[in-house]
Amino acid sequence: MKRCGIDTYIVSDRDPHMSEYPPERWKTRKWISGFSGSAGTAVITHGKAAVWSDSRYFIQAEAQLAGTEYHFFKEGLPATPDMYEWAACETEPTGTVAIDDKTISYTDGEKIKEYMATKGIKTVFGFDPFDTIWDGRPTIPDGKAYEYPLQYSGEEFSDRRLRLLSEAEAKDADAVLLATLDDTAWSFNIRGCDIPYNPVTVAYGYISRCENVLFIDEAKTDAALKEYLNRNGITTMPYAAIEEYLQNLPEGEHVLADPDRTNHRLASILAEKGAAIFAASPATLMKSIKNDTENDGIRNAVRRDGAAMSQFLCWLDENIGKTPISETSASRKLHEFRALQPLFTDESFATIAGYAEHGAIVHYSATEESDKELKPEGFLLLDSGGQYLDGTTDITRTIPLGPLTDEERRNFTAVLKGHIAVATAVFPAGTRGAQIDTLAKTALWKLGLTYMHGTGHGIGHFLNVHEGPQNIRPDFNPTPLRAGMTISNEPGVYIEGSHGIRIENMILVKKRADTVFGEFYEFETLTRCPIDTRAIEVSQLDEAEKEWLNNYHAETYTQLAPLVDEKTRLWLAERCAPV
Amino acid sequence: MKRCGIDTYIVSDRDPHMSEYPPERWKTRKWISGFSGSAGTAVITHGKAAVWSDSRYFIQAEAQLAGTEYHFFKEGLPATPDMYEWAACETEPTGTVAIDDKTISYTDGEKIKEYMATKGIKTVFGFDPFDTIWDGRPTIPDGKAYEYPLQYSGEEFSDRRLRLLSEAEAKDADAVLLATLDDTAWSFNIRGCDIPYNPVTVAYGYISRCENVLFIDEAKTDAALKEYLNRNGITTMPYAAIEEYLQNLPEGEHVLADPDRTNHRLASILAEKGAAIFAASPATLMKSIKNDTENDGIRNAVRRDGAAMSQFLCWLDENIGKTPISETSASRKLHEFRALQPLFTDESFATIAGYAEHGAIVHYSATEESDKELKPEGFLLLDSGGQYLDGTTDITRTIPLGPLTDEERRNFTAVLKGHIAVATAVFPAGTRGAQIDTLAKTALWKLGLTYMHGTGHGIGHFLNVHEGPQNIRPDFNPTPLRAGMTISNEPGVYIEGSHGIRIENMILVKKRADTVFGEFYEFETLTRCPIDTRAIEVSQLDEAEKEWLNNYHAETYTQLAPLVDEKTRLWLAERCAPV
Repeated sequence: MKRCGIDTYIVSDRDPHMSEYPPERWKTRKWISGFSGSAGTAVITHGKAAVWSDSRYFIQAEAQLAGTEYHFFKEGLPATPDMYEWAACETEPTGTVAIDDKTISYTDGEKIKEYMATKGIKTVFGFDPFDTIWDGRPTIPDGKAYEYPLQYSGEEFSDRRLRLLSEAEAKDADAVLLATLDDTAWSFNIRGCDIPYNPVTVAYGYISRCENVLFIDEAKTDAALKEYLNRNGITTMPYAAIEEYLQNLPEGEHVLADPDRTNHRLASILAEKGAAIFAASPATLMKSIKNDTENDGIRNAVRRDGAAMSQFLCWLDENIGKTPISETSASRKLHEFRALQPLFTDESFATIAGYAEHGAIVHYSATEESDKELKPEGFLLLDSGGQYLDGTTDITRTIPLGPLTDEERRNFTAVLKGHIAVATAVFPAGTRGAQIDTLAKTALWKLGLTYMHGTGHGIGHFLNVHEGPQNIRPDFNPTPLRAGMTISNEPGVYIEGSHGIRIENMILVKKRADTVFGEFYEFETLTRCPIDTRAIEVSQLDEAEKEWLNNYHAETYTQLAPLVDEKTRLWLAERCAPV
Repeated sequence: MKRCGIDTYIVSDRDPHMSEYPPERWKTRKWISGFSGSAGTAVITHGKAAVWSDSRYFIQAEAQLAGTEYHFFKEGLPATPDMYEWAACETEPTGTVAIDDKTISYTDGEKIKEYMATKGIKTVFGFDPFDTIWDGRPTIPDGKAYEYPLQYSGEEFSDRRLRLLSEAEAKDADAVLLATLDDTAWSFNIRGCDIPYNPVTVAYGYISRCENVLFIDEAKTDAALKEYLNRNGITTMPYAAIEEYLQNLPEGEHVLADPDRTNHRLASILAEKGAAIFAASPATLMKSIKNDTENDGIRNAVRRDGAAMSQFLCWLDENIGKTPISETSASRKLHEFRALQPLFTDESFATIAGYAEHGAIVHYSATEESDKELKPEGFLLLDSGGQYLDGTTDITRTIPLGPLTDEERRNFTAVLKGHIAVATAVFPAGTRGAQIDTLAKTALWKLGLTYMHGTGHGIGHFLNVHEGPQNIRPDFNPTPLRAGMTISNEPGVYIEGSHGIRIENMILVKKRADTVFGEFYEFETLTRCPIDTRAIEVSQLDEAEKEWLNNYHAETYTQLAPLVDEKTRLWLAERCAPV
């Protein structure tokens, strides 16, 4: 920093693609600070260092940073200083703040620059000392990429390309820059294996009226992929060539780029040439609206996933209290059952298995030290999912391992009521997820309970388990729910030191009717797996709720029974019996 | 315009206080165009003229502007040009657009200026030709203002002042500019009679650490008011002196001003001196949170208002089909009953009485031509309210005048279910009105029905019937619902050409409990008046809904019976019988 004349360095937790889960190479904040949470930023001055992270990581960050030179700031608490204000405060008024502009979005980079300018501080982009200081820094992942065939994607690249260009033209752009890994994978109908749980490949894409370029390293493309790309008129260039390519774009070519999801380096090249048209990525919205092939694939994937879940749950019922089972061994067992299913490639995220009070830690991840033995009582909260070639799944079940307290049954029932209220919602075109969110919470609120995480997130199709732009959260999100969007429906409640409950199914927005007030939508529940009726206080359900639950279980039995062994079939029949 | 070098003139529909209902003097758009709706803006160039207004006024505006030189543009339709874009288009690239900066907020004025600048067009503020061209333009209203006593307001001016100054200090300001008429009336504990339905007086206020100034014309203050002001350390200056006063503020004095609710002229004076601290008016939020005295006053006012409503509804039941009754004569009769109540001063807005298909016109106002005879069948939608010295009321009842169709009963029941869902909501601190809005609509949505108006608006305390910052609408509004806020709960449904239904009570946000998840709130329903059970499809109500309705009616009977005559008491007993 001194040699480069830098007073303060902001170490982001992002990769050049703004990925939620970056490859190890770009986990620079983790490497330099030792704090390994999935969200958090470090700020380093010549005299001080600090890390900011959110409430999910308060305990973990304090533990991991204890005894280091890093002070930990808890984001979202009133007493916590704003990170940028703190950075400015700790920098001389005519000093310099640096950030690697490949690891921050254009929007955020401009915000930092403008804010620092108001304090007289200069922002230096492009400072990336990690190649020098990080001994053994992982290289850019070079996993093989592959064609994602029409039978699963349901749309040829050529058609997808035309739709993207038409969106670009509507914004007076000649081309689209694909900057995130999932936008790129979706647009080119390719997948990869560079990031655990996310079947994406490290690449950028550029689609214009004249050419389709995939910026991907040679090592990642085999003959089959080359043949596919060639057949579709897609040329490849090295991953690192994107900057020079954008610098040398034809005069007058205008490029649609998403300022929130394109790194500051690339977006600045376009902005400085006057070539940037900043708008939300059309691929992101198009990708969120699944076609019939994708939806059929998801319906098949959730059946197989439900069969694996049922086999696991049957095994758990049979063995709990008899065989030693822990949070981590249960997760491994579930993985084994999933891995036996056709088209399974990986889990879609690291399984969260939280027994008893561990269930109340929303983003709990069992470690060797924390791993808890399951006893035949109380709740096991199990949030997991699979990547299948025909779809991505995400499911949470809260399993009574034995006797429950009245409070546990009451809370489970309230969460279920919220889940059913979302599942049975009907709403007009134009409705946003925030308008649905309340339905998940009214039963909990009446008991003085609530939860702080979102009720629903978008889910990719054999892609990232979290994707936008839609969600179901109380925060303002202008995106209306549109037919074809898949979302999770996952209300919960977490009683610190006691138990956690979450019931999560995937739901699909479907058209229900045309009325004089316009189009109305409803949800199709996709996930198939029993919701444990032993935990329900049935007297607290009204007739409509019981009807939904009994229909759900009848259909679940019908769909899953053919896919499981005889023992699990008997178990399913019992778990799917009407209340 | 030519003499002043102005190419395009934007005629706003606001007064210098950004009032929803301005005094006649400032209805310049109405005077110049002939279109009398409460919302709409005119744009005049040397060759063209046009008016923009929203869907409430599409029919009225087209009728009133037919045959004039004004083109009518329907706001909100995709084909409608943006007003400012149109104005810029119709202006020479180096031309001049004018607007009277007293009739536009600082925020909007700056937006126009910036937008026009991007087109090379100059914005001229301060152009107000109406004193010259409007023969007989009404003068500034000079109704008598008066003290609003402690027995109703529940807080001395001296305490209110300290709370305002403390909010100002929190934003590093030394003073607060009170720019809207209701903020001024509330802050100084005064009321007036300058605007029909709104007991405000035309004045500005300025409260600093050193002095409290009311800018009000001499003619409006009598000896009693002067004595009150004097006793409270409030000095008066002429209404027109505000500009000079702000220009001559002591060096270094910083003034909190609301950029959205202060006119551009005054705000610019502060901004140019470097004295402006722009933030939401603290008076607006403080005023929205009623104290115990105000709430007790409202509880008394709604009882008297409910007694008047009951007498009217009893009279209507008795006379429908026997005596000729029209929409306007019914409204007059209701006014007579209200006027007999103690502390009544005025209606709180012009009564909306819409019979049958007129009920489907959301902002229907019966005229001599449209006035409809009521028949002993179908629905009369009646939205009305009173100004009482101890509170403002707002109530809508939809009255079955005789036989109803199945559709009418089904729709009434769905609206009632939404009303009850809001009335019985429980929610944690921090919840915004948008999160409650969905509850009002889920029953309607299941039938493919909805409505486009807000579910709830804030209501003043012996002040304007519409006040912010809280509301219950799907749009994003960052204001959380806080204990002490009064809001309307008014879901509805409107079937064009057939009928309209709305059920409106006033509700008060109250604390319900402290839990491990923080404070929880609930609503107290304030309005007391039967909801006509003859229109309900009782089989569609669940047990909890019936219980709410029966409790509501039992309490309503208890509260209203002592206030009405024997005949109405018998009527009340019948209408309040449990379902």
